[in-house]
Amino acid sequence: MNASSFVINGFEFCGVSANIKQSGQPDLGVILCTNPKTTAAGLFTTNDVKAAPVLLCRKHIRSKHTRLVLVNAGNANAATGAKGLKDAETSARLAAKKFNFQPSEVLVSSTGKIGVPLPLEKITTALNSLTTSEHELDAFTNAIMTTDQYPKLVTHEGMLDKKNYRIAIIAKGAGMISPNMATFLCYIVTDLKISKPMAQQMLKEASENTLNAMTVDGDMSTNDTAILLASQMADNAPITKKNKAYTVILHVLTKLLGDIVQKVCLDGEGATKCFRTTVINARSTQQAKTIALSVANSQLVKTAMFGCDPNWGRILCASGYCGAKINPDKANIKLGDVFVFKKGVPQTQNESAAAVYLRNNQLIDVEINLNQGTARAKSFASDLTYEYVRINAEYST
Amino acid sequence: MNASSFVINGFEFCGVSANIKQSGQPDLGVILCTNPKTTAAGLFTTNDVKAAPVLLCRKHIRSKHTRLVLVNAGNANAATGAKGLKDAETSARLAAKKFNFQPSEVLVSSTGKIGVPLPLEKITTALNSLTTSEHELDAFTNAIMTTDQYPKLVTHEGMLDKKNYRIAIIAKGAGMISPNMATFLCYIVTDLKISKPMAQQMLKEASENTLNAMTVDGDMSTNDTAILLASQMADNAPITKKNKAYTVILHVLTKLLGDIVQKVCLDGEGATKCFRTTVINARSTQQAKTIALSVANSQLVKTAMFGCDPNWGRILCASGYCGAKINPDKANIKLGDVFVFKKGVPQTQNESAAAVYLRNNQLIDVEINLNQGTARAKSFASDLTYEYVRINAEYST
Repeated sequence: MNASSFVINGFEFCGVSANIKQSGQPDLGVILCTNPKTTAAGLFTTNDVKAAPVLLCRKHIRSKHTRLVLVNAGNANAATGAKGLKDAETSARLAAKKFNFQPSEVLVSSTGKIGVPLPLEKITTALNSLTTSEHELDAFTNAIMTTDQYPKLVTHEGMLDKKNYRIAIIAKGAGMISPNMATFLCYIVTDLKISKPMAQQMLKEASENTLNAMTVDGDMSTNDTAILLASQMADNAPITKKNKAYTVILHVLTKLLGDIVQKVCLDGEGATKCFRTTVINARSTQQAKTIALSVANSQLVKTAMFGCDPNWGRILCASGYCGAKINPDKANIKLGDVFVFKKGVPQTQNESAAAVYLRNNQLIDVEINLNQGTARAKSFASDLTYEYVRINAEYST
Repeated sequence: MNASSFVINGFEFCGVSANIKQSGQPDLGVILCTNPKTTAAGLFTTNDVKAAPVLLCRKHIRSKHTRLVLVNAGNANAATGAKGLKDAETSARLAAKKFNFQPSEVLVSSTGKIGVPLPLEKITTALNSLTTSEHELDAFTNAIMTTDQYPKLVTHEGMLDKKNYRIAIIAKGAGMISPNMATFLCYIVTDLKISKPMAQQMLKEASENTLNAMTVDGDMSTNDTAILLASQMADNAPITKKNKAYTVILHVLTKLLGDIVQKVCLDGEGATKCFRTTVINARSTQQAKTIALSVANSQLVKTAMFGCDPNWGRILCASGYCGAKINPDKANIKLGDVFVFKKGVPQTQNESAAAVYLRNNQLIDVEINLNQGTARAKSFASDLTYEYVRINAEYST
């Protein structure tokens, strides 16, 4: 399926230039929910420093229904104090007025420079003249990019209760805007009938080993946001509790979010690889998760990935220093299908095979088998490269 | 005082080549305690994956007295299983035999390659022929280096109870040995009369905002070790409880450890700067510490330091995402003496002054004033540079 022709019942999009970015590139996007019964769920940054749009979204997401998402790139409206919050409220109110919705039915996101007041006038001007269409998903995807090198969109068409349904996920990744906070924004739109509580539950569960397991550089942004919108227009039996349909859709959603997370990591600042760490046979999910994230965030592991170095020592070390109580004499480490460490013993005879695997793949699988229990967890990460340092060090006042 | 002539009552040193390093450079060092009453205290890595010498040291440090420290570079004796532990025990026994001590009076440390058996024969040969002298402190300092670009030694002569005492601290920092774990080793030798419990207490307290506040790249080694040896040969009244003398020496020790930590960070892999983050007016020491380490470990802050970019946004962001509950509207951030953020408001007018400060200094002070309480904590970190990536990515099998 050609993504550019992907249409989802109940949604219209647009992406235009409001001249917030100095480059003149598209920087304002809208998702319009044509069905007044559209339900929404959201996950937001846990950073203590929350940008104004996140503060507003956390309030508006409580509305029974959601009708519009307004996203701007080029300005994060973060560290802008009381004025920033007022600006976010004003932009939501203006958008609501144009489309005849309640302000509380409008969600807003911002990404870009921080500490700079939101250019409200530019947004107002662009809002007044924009039109939405069900065919503009790509335009929306482009408009929310900052320094992403490519747009991030995954689409899916499936069957539930013998009826078609569709899901599209649009994301933007870590972009360098000075001063930078590597904002991640993600919008999941689907025509499925899902109640609001189930949408929230499903988004949370599906994010556990995907959105919440991703790290480009361990720095969590003030603006990170994921929103799920369900237009209720597919013909499935409404999902109002955890049942088989819930499990089926959760599985699909987790898979799609995994795909989008890989795209984001591969387009991480300066990244040449995405490495996916799976910790298996852990004593608890928490233990598995702690280790998976420790490996993902280790600078030494990240540089080894860049250097295509099958450095099991760094992986073992990062598993050990995170306080998760591993037993190295029981642990195995695999790169792809190649064992590099087995029950306390380095598998030196396999090192060249592992190096070939690293050289030949952009998406690297690291498996850590703790042999301590049955729990598991995943993480996704970018490698650490010269280009990362260049991008993040070159800005200078 | 010329460090090369620094002599401390009760200690002899040596540093020789045992050909463990392929380069033939010095790689075996000994600290000999001439006074049978010498007390020792130790701090060891909290990594679950502990190298064999660390496991042995944790046992031997319980001896009432300590007579010898044997350190080798070039081989970390880590991830070497039961054989590794036996090798560590054998090397301690051989050293004890040569000098006529009990094996439990000998501490051993190793740093270098991991997963490779300790070359016991080479160590035995070198041990058999070495001699110690009170004038060989420099030779010892050189022998424990791996890829350190310069030896790390600080010395101090002070007065306590109107009597002279001396302290020397010898350390080695993050060196790149493939596969690497950036081991940190630190030996504090003093002629002071300090009881064993007080030595342990003092080492722990003095390390809180120095050794335990240092991060080159956030990756804690399997071999990290700090040992304090007190020869009891100075004429001070013995320090057997927390009193004024304890406080005086704790202050000196903390200062000296701060100096050595700065040396280590400045010689961090590829580092061009050491930045010292002080969090003040926090609600609790734990809150202050969490924030100080979060800033120190932030890749975005580290690259900003390398780029001499007064990027308060990244510092604020790293303070916010660590779960320490800050209030950005109350917080101030200073670089050197320059305010870059004040009670929620970016101080853009000061940015060029802050950039000049960053460009002109190798040792950078970051101060985060939370205005929430009275607690404080520090961290020390290296910046993140092209050279770090090169060093850590270039090894490839």
